[in-house]
Amino acid sequence: MSDPHPRVREVTSLSNPTVKALRALHDRKGRRESGLFLAEGARNAIEALDAGRAPEILVYHREGRGRDVVVRLRAATLASGGECLEVDEDVLAKIARKDNPQSVVAAYRWTRRPLSEIDPGRARVFVALDRVRDPGNLGTIVRTADAVGAGGVILVGETCDPASVEAVRASMGSIFAVPVFEGTLSDFQALASRWPGAIVGTALHATDHYRRTNAPSPILLVMGNEQAGISPEIASTCTHLVRIPMKGRADSLNLAIATAVALYGLAEPDDAAP
Amino acid sequence: MSDPHPRVREVTSLSNPTVKALRALHDRKGRRESGLFLAEGARNAIEALDAGRAPEILVYHREGRGRDVVVRLRAATLASGGECLEVDEDVLAKIARKDNPQSVVAAYRWTRRPLSEIDPGRARVFVALDRVRDPGNLGTIVRTADAVGAGGVILVGETCDPASVEAVRASMGSIFAVPVFEGTLSDFQALASRWPGAIVGTALHATDHYRRTNAPSPILLVMGNEQAGISPEIASTCTHLVRIPMKGRADSLNLAIATAVALYGLAEPDDAAP
Repeated sequence: MSDPHPRVREVTSLSNPTVKALRALHDRKGRRESGLFLAEGARNAIEALDAGRAPEILVYHREGRGRDVVVRLRAATLASGGECLEVDEDVLAKIARKDNPQSVVAAYRWTRRPLSEIDPGRARVFVALDRVRDPGNLGTIVRTADAVGAGGVILVGETCDPASVEAVRASMGSIFAVPVFEGTLSDFQALASRWPGAIVGTALHATDHYRRTNAPSPILLVMGNEQAGISPEIASTCTHLVRIPMKGRADSLNLAIATAVALYGLAEPDDAAP
Repeated sequence: MSDPHPRVREVTSLSNPTVKALRALHDRKGRRESGLFLAEGARNAIEALDAGRAPEILVYHREGRGRDVVVRLRAATLASGGECLEVDEDVLAKIARKDNPQSVVAAYRWTRRPLSEIDPGRARVFVALDRVRDPGNLGTIVRTADAVGAGGVILVGETCDPASVEAVRASMGSIFAVPVFEGTLSDFQALASRWPGAIVGTALHATDHYRRTNAPSPILLVMGNEQAGISPEIASTCTHLVRIPMKGRADSLNLAIATAVALYGLAEPDDAAP
């Protein structure tokens, strides 16, 4: 029994064109061409809905069509002009490109935001990532940025894709709550020149402790690439350089970890902790 | 041209029994049966060597046999009674179970350490993980524990395998520097009963700020499972409960991130930051 709404279809063929289009969203090329990206799981879809975002395409296991969460997601999808696919396990696995997929997968429109849209007055802290490579790190940083109330995550230069399945998965829904801005090095330099507060970089041999900078708000924390760190061009825009103390072997923090430690230290410095 | 040492062999057959045995180390069963685990890459092997650990079996691309790092690793392996395999790209890919493998892969003996071996006087902070599931999180936590100079990572209950390829990879060599202890809940309760300092758990609604606990050293930080948090049995051993402030949606930090923020806050509380 299919839902009578014309934009709710039951699909069981693996060669269905929408199934193929969704499957293509695992690749950057497919995302660029369509402007869409995938989020897996009902939890993510509900987080998105809470952030005011309905799917363009909602896919769910047909046996779950009566579940409260699916009913709510379907109503929101149809209300915003999207379409729904009721599918079986095989089609879900095909779209998710894995065995034992979650019972809900949804495609959303990616909004590409230039750095010129950033309003520094919007938050106490922002984080910029110079050529970040690992989508798991990127998604985890978006999640942490959400937790500290950051105003956005700013991607500079050639980076991994924030709309990749891995990044979206690691963000645990925060990709819908935290704006992600994308720009070139010169876009970043333009942002830096109009930035009203501190631009803080981390460096192993900086003298300032990361929780003791007295850096004025809004703080723009800049983190470097996993291998190479911050580029000299970006380092030269920094008004403050801070160090995260490390014992034993130096330089041994994962990028997402270092970003979190710095964000917590800067967003909530010693003198502000309750 | 093969090295003349009898424990250096050139292997190009994918069906070689040592190749098969190394390949089996990707599975927990294979690791348990042999007591060995795999670490990929020359960097990890050098980290291990610096920590006094030589491979039981060293595998390297035969074209790299003259590289300084390989010469050093081979000498250390042979000196400690291990064996060396000089292989080609296909065999390396087979052992690493991936395309474009690193040019060095090594197998080490896993030392299973019971909680009774823990010396609380050895460090200012230790971290215990209750039923941690994700090997990437576990490896990243080992890496962070290394950076803060923690005395060890303590695994409680059914956890993912700290010797898995994923955990070892995420530890970035720290698996050789930080002792990992493994025990049951009752082992942990026995440790807690003899613990001379604070046992600190995190809880969303705790009143103490994580950097303002005045918890006496040595601190045993306990972090809960990714989904369920700390079990009630473990929570009841805690002398202090602290919260990591989160804005927006609660409970939204990745486990490795929350552990790092808490470790940095506890290992270096406000009053101790230089």
